[in-house]
Amino acid sequence: MVRLNPSTPGKPAMFRINKLTDYAVVLLVDMARSDKVRAAQQIAVDTGVPLPTVAKVMKALVRSALVVSHRGANGGYGLARPAQAITVADMIQALEGPIALTACVARGEDPFGGARDLAAPGGDEPCGLGGLCPMHGHWDTVNRRVENALRTVTLADMAQGSLPAFDPAITRQRAALLAGDLA
Amino acid sequence: MVRLNPSTPGKPAMFRINKLTDYAVVLLVDMARSDKVRAAQQIAVDTGVPLPTVAKVMKALVRSALVVSHRGANGGYGLARPAQAITVADMIQALEGPIALTACVARGEDPFGGARDLAAPGGDEPCGLGGLCPMHGHWDTVNRRVENALRTVTLADMAQGSLPAFDPAITRQRAALLAGDLA
Repeated sequence: MVRLNPSTPGKPAMFRINKLTDYAVVLLVDMARSDKVRAAQQIAVDTGVPLPTVAKVMKALVRSALVVSHRGANGGYGLARPAQAITVADMIQALEGPIALTACVARGEDPFGGARDLAAPGGDEPCGLGGLCPMHGHWDTVNRRVENALRTVTLADMAQGSLPAFDPAITRQRAALLAGDLA
Repeated sequence: MVRLNPSTPGKPAMFRINKLTDYAVVLLVDMARSDKVRAAQQIAVDTGVPLPTVAKVMKALVRSALVVSHRGANGGYGLARPAQAITVADMIQALEGPIALTACVARGEDPFGGARDLAAPGGDEPCGLGGLCPMHGHWDTVNRRVENALRTVTLADMAQGSLPAFDPAITRQRAALLAGDLA
């Protein structure tokens, strides 16, 4: 599906983080403000984000070493490092992998050892053009600059604000709208 | 659909421009290198991008004043300004609208006069939270920095390279992979 935003007022653009990443930022902001180790259940209650979503997000955040899981009776999840040392780039990469605006470059940066094949733009299949493509390498520059920009904003910045805390009722309203998408 | 990239090696992340935007960059790079007014048909032949895709992209680029349509027997499409004065941000915005990583901010920046309602993250529906949401305003900063980063790379930069021209056969191979998606 392709949307031409300028011709369809009100429709959002597709240049987007996914919904789970959006929730990850919400949960990390709450953790930065709370600064306590809490069980997933408690985080779900405090933020209004559904427990299955909290569990899914925490799994990805632990895997990326942004969050630590503490075992035991008073166990739960806590930030792995100060909020000043966690950037928006870290958060997006934890949920979505390497920051790459086109699929071809993402394969080149594949931390799991994929070959440096170009992929069909926006698709999953390698396009097989490799170094023959005239765009080869040009998107690398763009991606690096976007990633650098995302490194200049931290979780501490995102957690600042005049609103003192999350209102679970508000987050639940937000969550209700997304329920169908995160099943 | 939500993909957790780090757990699924080889799968590209979702933080992506759409396929039509990728083609727009390919076509603009070819126009920057050619520096001639050409009919859509000729651009399709020269680049290997299917004519319906060329037509669709040119329509969006003319609307955004990046490309000018010249009428008459020797008419066709040409860049509206020098390649140095067209940025990657301009190209993405022409096809996808305002650069916004979450839907809530896109509505706030809607140049078509939409109200500043928050939208469900990643979705089309306003979430109705407005200024009550604890994330309110924080994504503005992130989006502005990403947009500024995308303003530092121009079409002239993208058109540089040791490969002298597009090979229509290669672009057709690329196009064939996408044919189903752009119908």
